[in-house]
Amino acid sequence: MNIEIERKFLVKNKDFKNLSYKEEVFKQGYLNSDKTRNVRIRVTNDKAFLTIKGASNASGTTRFEWEKEINRQEAEQLLLLCEPIIIEKKRYYIKNDDLIFEVDEFYADNQGLILAEIELNSEHQKFKKPDWLGKEVTGNKEYYNSYLSKNPFKNW
Amino acid sequence: MNIEIERKFLVKNKDFKNLSYKEEVFKQGYLNSDKTRNVRIRVTNDKAFLTIKGASNASGTTRFEWEKEINRQEAEQLLLLCEPIIIEKKRYYIKNDDLIFEVDEFYADNQGLILAEIELNSEHQKFKKPDWLGKEVTGNKEYYNSYLSKNPFKNW
Repeated sequence: MNIEIERKFLVKNKDFKNLSYKEEVFKQGYLNSDKTRNVRIRVTNDKAFLTIKGASNASGTTRFEWEKEINRQEAEQLLLLCEPIIIEKKRYYIKNDDLIFEVDEFYADNQGLILAEIELNSEHQKFKKPDWLGKEVTGNKEYYNSYLSKNPFKNW
Repeated sequence: MNIEIERKFLVKNKDFKNLSYKEEVFKQGYLNSDKTRNVRIRVTNDKAFLTIKGASNASGTTRFEWEKEINRQEAEQLLLLCEPIIIEKKRYYIKNDDLIFEVDEFYADNQGLILAEIELNSEHQKFKKPDWLGKEVTGNKEYYNSYLSKNPFKNW
């Protein structure tokens, strides 16, 4: 149970791929994509998680989050109960001083979209902006994964 | 992860109370009260559970159910994210041959409503009907707890 503080950006190019120290493939669906009581099932290569998020603060930076690891096979069955569009993406992890950028390259219905997120320790923490980092979209509801599960990028 | 097979009834009187071998007080809310992807947080005297249920079959008897015990204090925080009406009820457990009736007496916004449920091993299993058991309401959506959380008994 914690408060998530993060900022989100578009990317200018794919230079981030060469800087990645880890990659993971995610498949995730929503049992509720409402942003005030978001319930997500996420399956990775070898694990699965159930995550519940509350509403964001006004700036979109901080958000209540509760996460629990669950059985991966059970998670696959829970994905079948989720709202129709399942999000598929590859996440690249990139070190940025002592912080980490998570860059998501989307597939399937959201093919073409790439989003970078950085998790901060406090809302106004400064951090280095790499050359490949694009426009900030923190708090922009269209870039919530839950929004993308209802309004996929291919329809924008 | 299992399939729940159960039948639900109204009660004729409160005679069931003298037959109860255990009682528990429940407080429960919904992160999604949609009957096709129902997400429930339930807090009991000393435990808490997160339960996910899918849609019922046509007769309303069977339903996919996944349940996980979670930290009770965390559950209290998750209840704050739930849809507005929290269900409060006392559950009485009553032996019926080798099966068990769970009889829920509702409080707060659902005061006055009492529902009895029996969990079966197969859909057409026979069981003894005690005198206090009333009309069957299996599959009647109005008696789903998720429905009662949106349309409480006091407004019927």
